[in-house]
Amino acid sequence: MTAPYLAGVDIGGTKITVSLANTNGISVKVYQNVRLEGSHTAIPEQVDFLIGYACNQIGVQPDDIMAVGVSSCGPFMKEMGQVQLVAPNLCGGLVKDRDIIPNNWTWIPLESVLSRRWGTLKIENDAVAAVVAERLFGAGRGEDDLVYVTWSTGIGGGAYIDGRLIHGKNGNAPHIGHIYLAEDGPQCGCGNFGDMESLVSGVAIARDYGGRGTAEDVFKAYHSGDRKAKEIISKAIRNFARGLASINAILDTGVIVIGGSVFMNNIDILLPGIKDEFYRSFPVLSEGVDIRPSALGTYLGDMAALSLVMPDEWIRKWQENELWELAPPAVVLDR
Amino acid sequence: MTAPYLAGVDIGGTKITVSLANTNGISVKVYQNVRLEGSHTAIPEQVDFLIGYACNQIGVQPDDIMAVGVSSCGPFMKEMGQVQLVAPNLCGGLVKDRDIIPNNWTWIPLESVLSRRWGTLKIENDAVAAVVAERLFGAGRGEDDLVYVTWSTGIGGGAYIDGRLIHGKNGNAPHIGHIYLAEDGPQCGCGNFGDMESLVSGVAIARDYGGRGTAEDVFKAYHSGDRKAKEIISKAIRNFARGLASINAILDTGVIVIGGSVFMNNIDILLPGIKDEFYRSFPVLSEGVDIRPSALGTYLGDMAALSLVMPDEWIRKWQENELWELAPPAVVLDR
Repeated sequence: MTAPYLAGVDIGGTKITVSLANTNGISVKVYQNVRLEGSHTAIPEQVDFLIGYACNQIGVQPDDIMAVGVSSCGPFMKEMGQVQLVAPNLCGGLVKDRDIIPNNWTWIPLESVLSRRWGTLKIENDAVAAVVAERLFGAGRGEDDLVYVTWSTGIGGGAYIDGRLIHGKNGNAPHIGHIYLAEDGPQCGCGNFGDMESLVSGVAIARDYGGRGTAEDVFKAYHSGDRKAKEIISKAIRNFARGLASINAILDTGVIVIGGSVFMNNIDILLPGIKDEFYRSFPVLSEGVDIRPSALGTYLGDMAALSLVMPDEWIRKWQENELWELAPPAVVLDR
Repeated sequence: MTAPYLAGVDIGGTKITVSLANTNGISVKVYQNVRLEGSHTAIPEQVDFLIGYACNQIGVQPDDIMAVGVSSCGPFMKEMGQVQLVAPNLCGGLVKDRDIIPNNWTWIPLESVLSRRWGTLKIENDAVAAVVAERLFGAGRGEDDLVYVTWSTGIGGGAYIDGRLIHGKNGNAPHIGHIYLAEDGPQCGCGNFGDMESLVSGVAIARDYGGRGTAEDVFKAYHSGDRKAKEIISKAIRNFARGLASINAILDTGVIVIGGSVFMNNIDILLPGIKDEFYRSFPVLSEGVDIRPSALGTYLGDMAALSLVMPDEWIRKWQENELWELAPPAVVLDR
């Protein structure tokens, strides 16, 4: 038998990434568009296939995989204690206009399928897995009261309180994107009007600018002095900060780490404005909260999944040597 | 030595109540207006005095008090691990118009003073203590994912997640009254604009009706068919339910118990409307959440404080015999 390996699986709305790691770092990464057709077991079967494919790339037997950590887009629903995905960006049966997604799934039996093959398996929402990684290796090291918020095409969160990772009855805590911030606001993909995601997500920023480009185009316009772009981004900053103030009112946290592509690509513009607005909220609650950018940045996806199952002995070595930085480029699989 | 006793202390914005209980129930209750003058140790000293006074009423020695549970209005701030009160309705130094409160305190050294006298001492925010009581004796018995929300002159909350009571860095979780629900709303006592308390508290309902009466007057007007009262109460119901949806998005809870005078006096009007609006929010998160009125009602204040320190052997006996219902009327002390 060769040295034991971990598999880290990142299931997003468009792609699945699998990394295999041992005590010395990440050995291989494979990447494939997510399979949205066929039976509702298609995605967990694709995960099995990709772990096998990655093993093959480095001459490892699947039996050498001692644990699998899965970081997945949500929300989740638990059935007999097992995680099912009820994600509107994967399950066509959950969205009204089914043509967008070429399936009619209403749920995906993620844990029941994967657990047949992988004995040690841990599945978390992607932002929950991200807070585990930031606490072990990133900007929240050792913090007992810690919130991670991703500002990307959507908005997500993960949190520790009193030193413990929170889950809630279906493992969806904290689903910060769906807290309300406006009495009457635009409609979110989830159906809510005026929730955080409907107001500040990358999708919302692009929509508010006219809907022809991406959020990055709006930031480019901002840099060229475009007034409409400035207004939209100021409003998004204000509402994002008010969302952070709301989650802080609920969790009385110590440190908030922010990641996600919208934020990480525009830290200079966004971070000062977020802080300015955040500390204006109820001082007794907001004072003493530290707001920091993600320290893992582009490594966060891989590290989130691996962090869920990494043994303590490995963690110290990875921390000391920042082994995530040595990850190889991903092998991209066609379909 | 006589049988051991517990002291339950309820510190509110206007009064302090102390109950002494033994294994057979509550033996005595005393009640006094809160002391807002003198040194900033006045309130903890008043608590010491009231426990002594209550002991005297039933011929018990203070040494027979085996533990003291304190349920107090907040917020809290922890200094060297000890709870200080930084409550705007007790500390004149925290509010701009100091004439309202006849002191200039900015904090109250609650735990450091009480811990000199009482060896076993547990202090919690009043809504946090309430969720402990509702879980042991009330509408949330045995629930692992449970939120209690009080709808009264203010708005407060307490919560279990994954079977554990949550505190946060200063013991203020979940301070639900100060989550934002409107982009531009009325100003809350805490300084925020458009937070839950500013929109739906008893004070807010009375303010929206013209500010001359109380929230109860607005409900009376509602019953007589007054259109303005109906509009104000409908809006409050909608925002209260959206606040519950937000805390549920963060905590992914199983049961929400609602208490507080505004709610308990008007359950018939409020509960159906709250449910109607709550279940309209993101179905994947809102479905399967049960919303219930407090089962302890008027006993909640006493039971909240006592629940913090009640031994397991007593709990079973109190549950079986619903001993809280046998509490004597309070002895009211003049000042």
